[in-house]
Amino acid sequence: MRAIQDLYPDDFAHCYGCGRLNPDGLHIRTEWLGDEGVARLRPGPRHLAMPGFVYGGFLASLIDCHAIGTASAAAMLAAGLRPGEDVSPRFVTASLAVDFLRPTPAGVELLARARATEVGERKVVVEVTVSAGEAECARGRVVAVRIPRSMETGGGGEGGHQPG
Amino acid sequence: MRAIQDLYPDDFAHCYGCGRLNPDGLHIRTEWLGDEGVARLRPGPRHLAMPGFVYGGFLASLIDCHAIGTASAAAMLAAGLRPGEDVSPRFVTASLAVDFLRPTPAGVELLARARATEVGERKVVVEVTVSAGEAECARGRVVAVRIPRSMETGGGGEGGHQPG
Repeated sequence: MRAIQDLYPDDFAHCYGCGRLNPDGLHIRTEWLGDEGVARLRPGPRHLAMPGFVYGGFLASLIDCHAIGTASAAAMLAAGLRPGEDVSPRFVTASLAVDFLRPTPAGVELLARARATEVGERKVVVEVTVSAGEAECARGRVVAVRIPRSMETGGGGEGGHQPG
Repeated sequence: MRAIQDLYPDDFAHCYGCGRLNPDGLHIRTEWLGDEGVARLRPGPRHLAMPGFVYGGFLASLIDCHAIGTASAAAMLAAGLRPGEDVSPRFVTASLAVDFLRPTPAGVELLARARATEVGERKVVVEVTVSAGEAECARGRVVAVRIPRSMETGGGGEGGHQPG
């Protein structure tokens, strides 16, 4: 299955978290299952908080890029497009909130599930859960907005939001 | 000046964000200036969201580890200890919230300033701003808690919070 990130335009495919064209990145991939986005990711040995546990910033990154991918899919559906087949529109992150529910064990593939809870013309709200095996380890909420024009050329910096 | 993270016990110095013993990590360092923590960090060329702009997950990581270091310093002060001289107690992240105010330009050293706004026995709340030059790019709020015993051995997983 093609991920949402596989179908971002090349200019938007360099993200450290999810860019297919960033050779050093995490390569987070959102697969759209009809009503939710699913991403699976195994932290590397360097992504520790302390021995035995995954780094919180890694989990925040997973939640961020996966939510942005899910926002893209939800916006496509609302516009009559096909997530995973048509070109994915690029959203950026206005805000990110993560609750860490319990320590996340290292060495385990993580499962992130995301749903859009609000889909507007310009703004999409996404809620994400991250689990390791049976244990839910983190929950996140992301406010995603369509990429501002000022960022499309890599030039701007005015009035936009953070690319996630 | 010695950073708060320079004085974490060795067992807690492997964090991808701030661990001095993680050779592949970001090496975020919190210097305590008496009433606030200051961290300076230059994103690497890989830490992009898209060409020209810094990855949001990188900013979330900076806010996370810098807030945890600042929580440690604030707790030390409250206990009559000397931040940057005595051993730093390890806190972990219960929650992390980031507002992205504008796109963060790549290639610039970032300045993160953090203050503890609530200092309890077990819980410290920290607010952080991240700037690139004159522009404030992101704001964060972190709820930090003292590391639970279950995590001190790298074994647990019950009832704790995420190491940040």
